[in-house]
This record gives sequence, C-alpha cells and structure tokens, in this order.
Amino acid sequence: MRQSQLFTKTLKDAPRDEESTNAKLLIRAGFVHKEMAGVYTFLPLGLRVLKNIENIIREEMNRAGGQELFMPALHPKENWKQTGRWDSLDTLFRFTSYYTKQEYALGATHEEIVVPLAKTLISSYRDLPQYVYQIQNKFRDEKRAKSGILRSREFLMKDLYSFHKDEADLDAYYETMKDSYKRIFERAGIGHVTHLTFASGGTFSKYSHEFQTITQAGEDTIYLCEKCGVAVNEEIIKDQPVCPECQNKNLKQEKAVEVGNIFKLGTKYSEPFRLTYKDEKGKENLVVMGCYGIGLNRLMGVVAEVFHDEKGILWPKVLAPALVHLLSLAGGEQQADELYKDFQNKGIEALYDDRRDSSPGEKFTDADLIGIPLRIVVSAKTYSEGKVGVKKRNEKQERLIDEKEIMECIQSL
Amino acid sequence: MRQSQLFTKTLKDAPRDEESTNAKLLIRAGFVHKEMAGVYTFLPLGLRVLKNIENIIREEMNRAGGQELFMPALHPKENWKQTGRWDSLDTLFRFTSYYTKQEYALGATHEEIVVPLAKTLISSYRDLPQYVYQIQNKFRDEKRAKSGILRSREFLMKDLYSFHKDEADLDAYYETMKDSYKRIFERAGIGHVTHLTFASGGTFSKYSHEFQTITQAGEDTIYLCEKCGVAVNEEIIKDQPVCPECQNKNLKQEKAVEVGNIFKLGTKYSEPFRLTYKDEKGKENLVVMGCYGIGLNRLMGVVAEVFHDEKGILWPKVLAPALVHLLSLAGGEQQADELYKDFQNKGIEALYDDRRDSSPGEKFTDADLIGIPLRIVVSAKTYSEGKVGVKKRNEKQERLIDEKEIMECIQSL
Repeated sequence: MRQSQLFTKTLKDAPRDEESTNAKLLIRAGFVHKEMAGVYTFLPLGLRVLKNIENIIREEMNRAGGQELFMPALHPKENWKQTGRWDSLDTLFRFTSYYTKQEYALGATHEEIVVPLAKTLISSYRDLPQYVYQIQNKFRDEKRAKSGILRSREFLMKDLYSFHKDEADLDAYYETMKDSYKRIFERAGIGHVTHLTFASGGTFSKYSHEFQTITQAGEDTIYLCEKCGVAVNEEIIKDQPVCPECQNKNLKQEKAVEVGNIFKLGTKYSEPFRLTYKDEKGKENLVVMGCYGIGLNRLMGVVAEVFHDEKGILWPKVLAPALVHLLSLAGGEQQADELYKDFQNKGIEALYDDRRDSSPGEKFTDADLIGIPLRIVVSAKTYSEGKVGVKKRNEKQERLIDEKEIMECIQSL
Repeated sequence: MRQSQLFTKTLKDAPRDEESTNAKLLIRAGFVHKEMAGVYTFLPLGLRVLKNIENIIREEMNRAGGQELFMPALHPKENWKQTGRWDSLDTLFRFTSYYTKQEYALGATHEEIVVPLAKTLISSYRDLPQYVYQIQNKFRDEKRAKSGILRSREFLMKDLYSFHKDEADLDAYYETMKDSYKRIFERAGIGHVTHLTFASGGTFSKYSHEFQTITQAGEDTIYLCEKCGVAVNEEIIKDQPVCPECQNKNLKQEKAVEVGNIFKLGTKYSEPFRLTYKDEKGKENLVVMGCYGIGLNRLMGVVAEVFHDEKGILWPKVLAPALVHLLSLAGGEQQADELYKDFQNKGIEALYDDRRDSSPGEKFTDADLIGIPLRIVVSAKTYSEGKVGVKKRNEKQERLIDEKEIMECIQSL
C-alpha cells in the first residue's frame, strides 16, 4: 500500500461531536469515516483490521465445530410477532415495502430467522447437536449512539447459535465456547484485561456470561475478583456480593466494556416456533439452545482503547493493517522503493509512506498515529551507510541497523 | 465437511412459489433457504460458492488497483435528497428512527455515500485517480421479486467507483475494468456465454456496457453479433440496428441475464456534492467518475442456470463448494474414513457423505444434485479390491481406479 495513493487521510482533529477515544483515534488515523451518528465507513486501513479480527473469530468458530452461513438482514414481521419481540424490542428498526406493503424488521439479532430455519433441518435426535454462525451486519435503533464504534446503529457481529438435545449437552458446549472466546480475546491481544463476567441468566440458567475488557472507556461497572480473575456485573452483586467462582468477598470495582457474551437460551425461542426433535424413544422434545455473540467493530474499538498512547494507536501485531510502516525521506527514495519491492516479494505486508510533499515530521507523526508495529525509515543518511532506522511502535528511540538485519528485526516482532 | 452433520438438507421438491430454475436447484440441493419472496439465507454449501465468487472478484479488483473499503447500509436522508434520488428512486427502502425521528435510506447503491466521502479526501489533482470498491449488502424494494436469487430484495454486490481528473483518464480505466470483468466471468466459467453488451449511456457517454450471459432464464433480449462477439440491448437496437463494433447488420436475438455493468457517470454525482479538485494551474474542476457493479448472488444463480442438467448442478471447479464428494457405502466405511482424513491432511476440500441411514441411490442422487466436480465412491466391493469408484459430474459412467491413482484423478480436474 502506497500511502500517496491510499484512499484515506490522517486528520489533526477528530469531528467535534465525537467524544470517545476509540472513534477520535480511528478517525484521526484514517481507519474509519463517520457518516452520521452511530454509522461509520471502514476505510482501507480500518477494513484490514476488521478482516484480521474476522479471521481470528472465524478460525475459532470453525475449530469449535461451527458451520458458517449467511442470513439476511431483511426479516419478515411474522417471525418477530411469533416471539413477541416485534412489539417489545425497542431497538428494532421496522418499515414497510412501498410496493408490497409487507412489513419488515431489520435484523438486530437472528433468533427469529435461525430457529424457523433449524425447524426445516432438525427433526430427530440424529440431527443434533448443531452449531451455526455468521459474520453479518446488525442494525439497532439506539436511543443515543455514543462510545464511537463501540455502540453503533449498524455493526458487524459474529453470532453463533447452538442446538442441543438436552441441558447437559448445552452445558458442555457452553464451556467449549467459553474457551473459544478466551482464545479469541487472547489472540486479539486483550486477554490480560478481559474477564469472564457473571451476568443475569434469564429464566433458564442462573447465569449468563459476558466478557468484559477493562479500559478507561468502560461503560459498565464490574466487580473483579483478583483472586481468581472472574468478575460479576452490577445486577449480580446486588443479590450476591461474593465471587461465584471462589466465594471471595473482596471484589474490586472497575469500569469495563463488554466485548462478547454467551447465553443459555434454553427453550426460549424453540418454544414459540415449536422447534422440536424426536428422541430415541420417538418422544417429541423441545430443542435446547445457546447463543454466543461478538461485535467486531466493538472489539476493534476496544483494542484501540486498550492500546494507545498520547500519539496514537499501538496495534497488536495480528490485528495491525500492516506489519511494517516504511517511511521514505529525502534522498532515500531509491532505497525505499527497493525495500518495498522486496517486502512485496517476500509477502510482508507494508504500508509505504512514499509521499513527496510531506515533511519528515509529518511522516513520523502519522506513523505513530496509525500505529503499525514496526517503523522503518530510509533517508539520504541511511542510504549512504547501507543502513535503515528502525523503531517499534512501543519504543521511544529509533536505532540504526544494517539493511540485512531487517528480516531478523521483523521476525522478532 | 461430514454430510451427516451438515446444516443443510437436500429436498425432493422446491417450494411451490419458486419458478426459477436457479432457485429451484439451489434450494433443492441445500445451498440456499428461502426466507420470503426475494430474501434468502446462504447455507454452508451456498456460502462456500459465494465466498469463491467473492475471492475471484476481490483478486481482480485488487489487480486493477482497487482499494477495498466497507460502507454502511444505513444512509442519511440528506445525501439522497442532494441527488434527488430520495424521491425518484422507487426501489429505495426508506424509514424513520423511532427514537431520533431521523429518516434513513437503506443502501440500494452507494454513490450518495462514496461521493461525499471522496470529497473529504480529494482536493488536488495529486489525489487522483482513485479506485475504491466494496463487497457489501444492497437492498432494493423490488416490485416483484422473481427469478430466484437473480433479483432479490437483499443481495451481495461488488461496487467499484473510480475518480478521475478528466474523461481521457476515465476512458482508460474503463477499458481496464472491461478486461477485469471479462477475466472474472472467464474464471467463473461463464466466459464463453457472456457478452459485452452495448447499452444506453446516459447524458455523459454514448454507451454504457452490460455483461450479458446467455441462459434459458434470460430476462433481457439482446442482439448478438456473431462476427465479433459483442451484443447490443433493445434500447440501442431501436436507434441503430448494427453492431457498434464491426458494423455487421446480421444480429441474432437472444435472451440473456445481466451479470455485471460498467458505467461512465461523468459528473452526474460529483456535481450535486461539488466534488472538485484543483488542477496544476490551480483551477477548480469537477471530478469525473465511473461505476462498476457485479451482483454476487446473481452471478451464482447464473452459473447454476448455465451449468445444470436434469439431475442437478455442475459447478465449475473454482466455484464448487468442494472438489471431491466422497460417498461411503456399506462395507466401505473404514476406507472412506481413511480417505477423508487423507484429503484433510492434503488440504483437499471434500464433502464426505458419511450418512449411515441413506441408501446408495439417495447418495448418488444427492451427489448429482449438489454437483461437486468429482464423485468418489467406496463400498465393500471397492474396499476388498483396493480400488475406488470415480465419476466426474459431467460423466455418465463410474469407473474403478486404484486408490493410488486418486490424486492424479483430482489433479486432472
């Protein structure tokens, strides 16, 4: 990617109406563009981060036996009437076709689609269990869109739905998903500040679980048990001011952001749609369900909240839009061009700041703002000495290394 | 993929209200599920085909210098008011937020988003040209949703927008896109029946171009010049009953389906948003634009229309949900399990029909319906002889080969 041609621009200032750190940073660094309150375009660098997140999530869902499908965003009213949520879910966008007068909901979640679909495929115990997921746009008519890309009116979400013959089978898969989620947040670099958090479980189970990441942008108050690492949310602590895992009473109040949740639905949605199966004895039973969500935009925003300093973002290597940010300064153009070609040949993702009309100061500032893990600078001086300047994003000082040491430096990231 | 666990089912009959061949085949083979008129879920096998199409398109767009981004489906009313299409585009879904009373359009196309976005990034001739694209859901309030997945109310589309300093630059890129489109349709296997078709060009250029694929499901009448391979549509032939390429007057009437279109927009959208740039002399000029669309669902449906027989679909290798369909018959279970593991180790995509409760006849019927390029059958008989039965989807007779010849057979596809 040549920065001179990139369809993005860094900005000195974020839009005045944007209060959240994640949106300010991501907009200033040119990762996203705000279209209106709660609605963002992902620009090329931002989309790369989003795709990296998507790939991690997809790998972990596949590893857990998930089958990917793709459900629509346009939903028929009847399905939502069936569960009662046409009238009760206040964030549901509803509208009417001009031509057919049919009423639609815009998918805020997909139980109303996946359960009737499962009904066409599941009839016997032999058809169970099933785990299906999608990575797809959701729409929510949020009262106030705040917190930048953490809570937007349109956002990418991974939602997995599991179908089981009984609670024991759901319970076992629920633990598998807990592990998958832990791995996702670890791989995304926020494992150390993300805590399994006990939340209210509805009528079917005592608890559901959220994954809460501690950041300064925290929207939720959680109570962290430092002894075992789990947390409880406000709802739970009211009734039960102890850690449900180790009974420790010494819990520390923190502000955190929810990055995922897992929920035992039980028969809540199989009931209204009569999603049943015949067991070994021919007896008809309701299918038992679980659902498991992660917002991709939200995860990206949280990572920006966790990893930034006063100069900009510090992307974890696996999420970064490129591994190397190559800066060409005056007199280093030829060396930079050659290095860039070399990176392309070796399959090393590089953002190449080949802009001729930007000062070295501007380039350094932009590199810190964008936050790619390794900065490599070439100039007249480095060129004459056969060296390059390297600085990891989390380092303060640039150091000179031989050109032939570059690969080693990249591998050490 | 083990068929016994796959979240899909083949059907003897398609839904009664479904008339089109593509939807009938794709529904019966378990690739898509119809949610309501014009709205489909892509099941695991269908999503694989869609992803294969997506990857081909993405590769060709990147090769043509396209930068991928991701714009929202929720659009502010003001943008559509600005171009006049809030009132004039009859397929635009429009609705109002319950909370904010803000009016939204649901993206039917993205000029109204990409042009204001470009305005924040383009100001000088140095910022041009730019080519940006996305692969994203579109929504259209179609009067009648017919033709199965060829014309649905919600569909995946690749739309690229190009921005130029003048017509000459647009013209050159327009030719690049023509080549990209040709390559996409060739790679998807329908190059031989897809024709560059002259269509009306609006006010800016004499022609736009459609890519029309000749199939029995043809929605459009085109006039094909068999001398040079291009076609003209009905609108053009009325004024000018000759081939615009070679002046041949002998044109053959055909029914075809549009699989892509490319259009010189000129200043149609840069004008209302005042998207301008300063040229070398400091003079302000309107940016000149082109747009280039391909519907992914539609392409998938067209491929099913072109490649099927009375038994089912015949997927081109590059689009197929798997390369090999492995069928385990009684007595061949152990051999099949070993082969399946071997395919997995070698990275060969295989659908494994490991169902214990299906007859050989059902398995053969399903294999033809699903249409994976190579069928491999193992049974008690093949097992005892160290052989397997192979049949390409386009062959009539199965033949027995030695197990060690399998790889050769797969490579010959």
